Amino acid sequence: MDAEQGIHDGNERFMEAVRTADSATMPSLYTTDAVILPPNGDAVSGADAVAQYWHDFTELGITYARPETLEVIPMGDYALEVGETSVYAGDGTLLDRGKIMVLWKNDEGTWKMHRDTWNSSLPPSAGS
Amino acid sequence: MDAEQGIHDGNERFMEAVRTADSATMPSLYTTDAVILPPNGDAVSGADAVAQYWHDFTELGITYARPETLEVIPMGDYALEVGETSVYAGDGTLLDRGKIMVLWKNDEGTWKMHRDTWNSSLPPSAGS
Repeated sequence: MDAEQGIHDGNERFMEAVRTADSATMPSLYTTDAVILPPNGDAVSGADAVAQYWHDFTELGITYARPETLEVIPMGDYALEVGETSVYAGDGTLLDRGKIMVLWKNDEGTWKMHRDTWNSSLPPSAGS
Repeated sequence: MDAEQGIHDGNERFMEAVRTADSATMPSLYTTDAVILPPNGDAVSGADAVAQYWHDFTELGITYARPETLEVIPMGDYALEVGETSVYAGDGTLLDRGKIMVLWKNDEGTWKMHRDTWNSSLPPSAGS
């Protein structure tokens, strides 16, 4: 599977996991040695910590996280995704709008997130 | 030059440009089609916009920006740097502490930043 399709599929699974608050699924979208670099906190690594991070994320009232891929730079078994993201509450309220940069890795045929970071595009008082 | 050394050299030039508020040098540290994804703003691309971004950055009173490389993932003519950064005022006051993720590219022998993003590790009220 090529990187663009693999990233598309991974993002679909990610959005579904956020929508259903299924944090237990989250580690399967990442490589086993993945690192998340979230805004306003320290880096997160390891399956348990990854699941906990996304558990806490959905506990904030976020129901929809919609990454939009603007660019994929293929590099063999790796590919860099650059894009935008919007997160919404269940009632459709926009909670944040930001930019994403994700290094994906081909893990035995499945593209998984290996290094995952993002930040808000909104002013400090409005974004998170 | 290997990626680790090239990234080290690029970061040294970056720190010196921040220290001397030499925003005119900044575009030379980036590929011509580089994109910066700064927190709390939209993506920045093009030499003029890159120089302007770093001009505004130093105008905030930032004199020292100290990226610390924690990991380099080599991928041929590309390499991903993951690390931390601290920014200080001229009097040594810590203004922010964060995480960085930079895709570097070997541009005819010189490693340059191609996709550059970071975020604060401090709570929203403290970080930027």
